[in-house]
Amino acid sequence: MKSFRKELWFELPTRRGFVNITQDVTACVRESGVKEGFVLVNAMHITASVFINDDEPGLHRDYERWLEELAPHDPVSHYDHNRTGEDNADAHLKRQVMGREVVVAITAGKLDFGPWEQIFYGEFDGRRRKRVLVKIIGD
Amino acid sequence: MKSFRKELWFELPTRRGFVNITQDVTACVRESGVKEGFVLVNAMHITASVFINDDEPGLHRDYERWLEELAPHDPVSHYDHNRTGEDNADAHLKRQVMGREVVVAITAGKLDFGPWEQIFYGEFDGRRRKRVLVKIIGD
Amino acid sequence: MKSFRKELWFELPTRRGFVNITQDVTACVRESGVKEGFVLVNAMHITASVFINDDEPGLHRDYERWLEELAPHDPVSHYDHNRTGEDNADAHLKRQVMGREVVVAITAGKLDFGPWEQIFYGEFDGRRRKRVLVKIIGD
Repeated sequence: MKSFRKELWFELPTRRGFVNITQDVTACVRESGVKEGFVLVNAMHITASVFINDDEPGLHRDYERWLEELAPHDPVSHYDHNRTGEDNADAHLKRQVMGREVVVAITAGKLDFGPWEQIFYGEFDGRRRKRVLVKIIGD
Repeated sequence: MKSFRKELWFELPTRRGFVNITQDVTACVRESGVKEGFVLVNAMHITASVFINDDEPGLHRDYERWLEELAPHDPVSHYDHNRTGEDNADAHLKRQVMGREVVVAITAGKLDFGPWEQIFYGEFDGRRRKRVLVKIIGD
Repeated sequence: MKSFRKELWFELPTRRGFVNITQDVTACVRESGVKEGFVLVNAMHITASVFINDDEPGLHRDYERWLEELAPHDPVSHYDHNRTGEDNADAHLKRQVMGREVVVAITAGKLDFGPWEQIFYGEFDGRRRKRVLVKIIGD
């Protein structure tokens, strides 16, 4: 069994945003030499997500608005977590809706994807350096 | 390490619905010959889900109503994504709540499940042919 | 390829609660002898979750309140599932928001975690014995 590990680094200038990381993960799969296996892609921070959906800017605005409705940032005093001096409780909630990780099949050396699947890093508490882990196992 | 891959195809007559696919996944595990490993089951479309929960019709009606409350289909003009000519923005949101994929342990050649776990395909934008990927790795 | 399996048992005295199981999973990884691989940690019950987030009591109170807003327990008659004699429909919904499972990379014999990642068992219908499955594959 082969294994491969790489960290992807991000520093978004805004509090929230989505970054398409499909090409980075594709490059990892190629570099790993794994032909049949799984790739795990996960946020290493608990106020960020990795998820699979459509690379369509209108949809990303819909996600932004919807997540703000489900778990608003303001008022920050609404959240007990923010009494610790943080202001990012909402980010911990939004990340649960969007998910921490994806597991994707590798078949014949490629991401085994349907027609519109793209992998995104979802940031909910940005403006600092944060990481995503790409881990591959297989043959 | 062995690997196995199969696609399951669906065409639901309605926009939304849930299909129990546990027996299909069980058949894949048997066919794969894998005794110890993982099976990944994921929607290959970004307006559908694969999830594990109870096979109880009342609960499925509860999910349907609850998801419509969290991310209503109408008015379609509420969503920026629908300006592309689509009317399925809500399906992209509902799928995030229910999830894209499950990973299930295989032990002694069987799905390693608790008493009530059943695998479902969740459709949020049906009336066309769509796929689920079953990928197995192990020994 | 090595594999390892263990069940963790819980009986929470309350209907809902969160239990940090990171040390239990760490012990499983050590016991497995796997140096490079994946660990799957999943609830074996459909009214419970396994998720990764912060070990901060204020945040856990925020999750509790937020999940009650998204999927209230009362009135129990609001849910079709509860016509079966159950009163736990809300627990099936809450578990979908928080997720069934996590997959974590194992690197150099350890959980490959970011600085604040901790694994939790999330109970939404407690006061009885329930299980979490830890399954490891790798080399």
